Amino acid sequence: MRLGIDLGGTNLAYGVVDRTGQVVVRDQHALPNYLFGDVVTLMIKIYQQYATQYDIIQVGIGVPGIVADGIGDDVSCVNLAWQNQKLHSALSKHIKCPISIGNDANAACIAETLFGNMKGHQNTALLTLGTGVGSGFIIGGKMVTSQRGGAEFGHVIIAENGYRCNCGNIGCLETFTSATAIIRHYNDLDGVSTVGNAAQVFDRYQRGDDRAFETVNWFCEHLAVGIINLYNFFAPEVVCLAGGVSRAFPLFEDTLKEAVNRRVFNRAIQYGKIVQSALDDAAGIIGAAYLSEFN
Amino acid sequence: MRLGIDLGGTNLAYGVVDRTGQVVVRDQHALPNYLFGDVVTLMIKIYQQYATQYDIIQVGIGVPGIVADGIGDDVSCVNLAWQNQKLHSALSKHIKCPISIGNDANAACIAETLFGNMKGHQNTALLTLGTGVGSGFIIGGKMVTSQRGGAEFGHVIIAENGYRCNCGNIGCLETFTSATAIIRHYNDLDGVSTVGNAAQVFDRYQRGDDRAFETVNWFCEHLAVGIINLYNFFAPEVVCLAGGVSRAFPLFEDTLKEAVNRRVFNRAIQYGKIVQSALDDAAGIIGAAYLSEFN
Repeated sequence: MRLGIDLGGTNLAYGVVDRTGQVVVRDQHALPNYLFGDVVTLMIKIYQQYATQYDIIQVGIGVPGIVADGIGDDVSCVNLAWQNQKLHSALSKHIKCPISIGNDANAACIAETLFGNMKGHQNTALLTLGTGVGSGFIIGGKMVTSQRGGAEFGHVIIAENGYRCNCGNIGCLETFTSATAIIRHYNDLDGVSTVGNAAQVFDRYQRGDDRAFETVNWFCEHLAVGIINLYNFFAPEVVCLAGGVSRAFPLFEDTLKEAVNRRVFNRAIQYGKIVQSALDDAAGIIGAAYLSEFN
Repeated sequence: MRLGIDLGGTNLAYGVVDRTGQVVVRDQHALPNYLFGDVVTLMIKIYQQYATQYDIIQVGIGVPGIVADGIGDDVSCVNLAWQNQKLHSALSKHIKCPISIGNDANAACIAETLFGNMKGHQNTALLTLGTGVGSGFIIGGKMVTSQRGGAEFGHVIIAENGYRCNCGNIGCLETFTSATAIIRHYNDLDGVSTVGNAAQVFDRYQRGDDRAFETVNWFCEHLAVGIINLYNFFAPEVVCLAGGVSRAFPLFEDTLKEAVNRRVFNRAIQYGKIVQSALDDAAGIIGAAYLSEFN
């Protein structure tokens, strides 16, 4: 059995995963703060608890940030205010089995590639559309790591005009295709804030709301550019959309695919399929548990 | 010895390359047309000529297009009006040693990575700034192939406004950073066409011409976005600029690097160096000769 831990923006989700990718047992823990030491203590407690019941041969942790050394002793997560933390060393004093630490979107990409909607492919891309936009890529069966700052596809610049991103640039994919962007664009169209989450925008879209219609089109046009850029970069066989916004995939699938098809570089080429996450929020746990397979 | 053949827009360049990457002998042949059969006949003649003088153990061909099957029996080059040509089969009837066929920018990337200014690195990117913009990427020591239509980084979309690209889209990197783009932008600023090539723009830049200054800044700002997008994709250790425009690198290096540094996602990370091609137009021949090493 493997223990997968998914460190998120508001809580720590974790579970025991078997060799077929099934989550045997799972739970989560709210994180009142992100103090490094407290999070480490919590992770060790979780391991010790499960280790009494299961034969844990591998621990994997997905983090919302950059694992600059590829091991986990140089972990930086902007949203947790972690800078160059030695997570691997802190854990390995108390956890006796191998520990793999990687980016959370990379973990989700691994999960979908091994067990989900990208199963069987060697060249895959996953975009998490949540508060921000994360990404994971597998090329030729190997993970493109976030080491050295790569795989930050949410910060690929696709436009000259637009909202300023938290990273300081203008035109990042994230400023058009995250839940935050959808909410902001909808409310800006009205001039007053009327929705508080992206699901509400999609609800209104279904009910024929004009502003929601315009917002969803705007989102799809920009997400299409992001997908076209992936195609022109390494032409993945499948692009998987994950994260909160992806739950509305059946509503925006046709609009998105039409916007992508309008922009393909070579119409003679069969570009990658666009699919929705199969594993939803379990992808983070499952992928974390299998990070070791792509190190 | 290896025979490297670089199929270009106006001529066929070729040479015999030794195991240290040195071009022992080279020549080129103007291409009055691009009829597939004629080009094949010419390539066979070149091979036969050199095979009498050298022990040719490998033939490699770089083509300005997509090798969709990864072998060379599905070669499409828009500018040559080649669609799904069986180049490998046509050659292998007459050439008895192994033949590797790949994208020309990929070949240049291989040459610079093995023998040029990206030597010793495992994660490299090369952009050819010529009539169009080509690209080659090596990730973890493996080439990202143009198979399935990937590595067309010149067609990554970086803006919403701009010239329409030959590919049909608006905002492709190529429409801002190719020689064609530089010439067009300069002449548009004036309202009349006054330069016929990019070198003239850089000459005028050196002489303090205002329009040339504005054009070079415009070029650097957009090329910087392209490089930032590479960083956020896979964070290459080195980005190498090749092609005609890159010969002016010493003139625009500082402006470009300043524009890149202004946009990096994480200032704590040491992103890849930006260098000029060391092998210049020999890169196509040398890289073609070594395509087999990255297949």
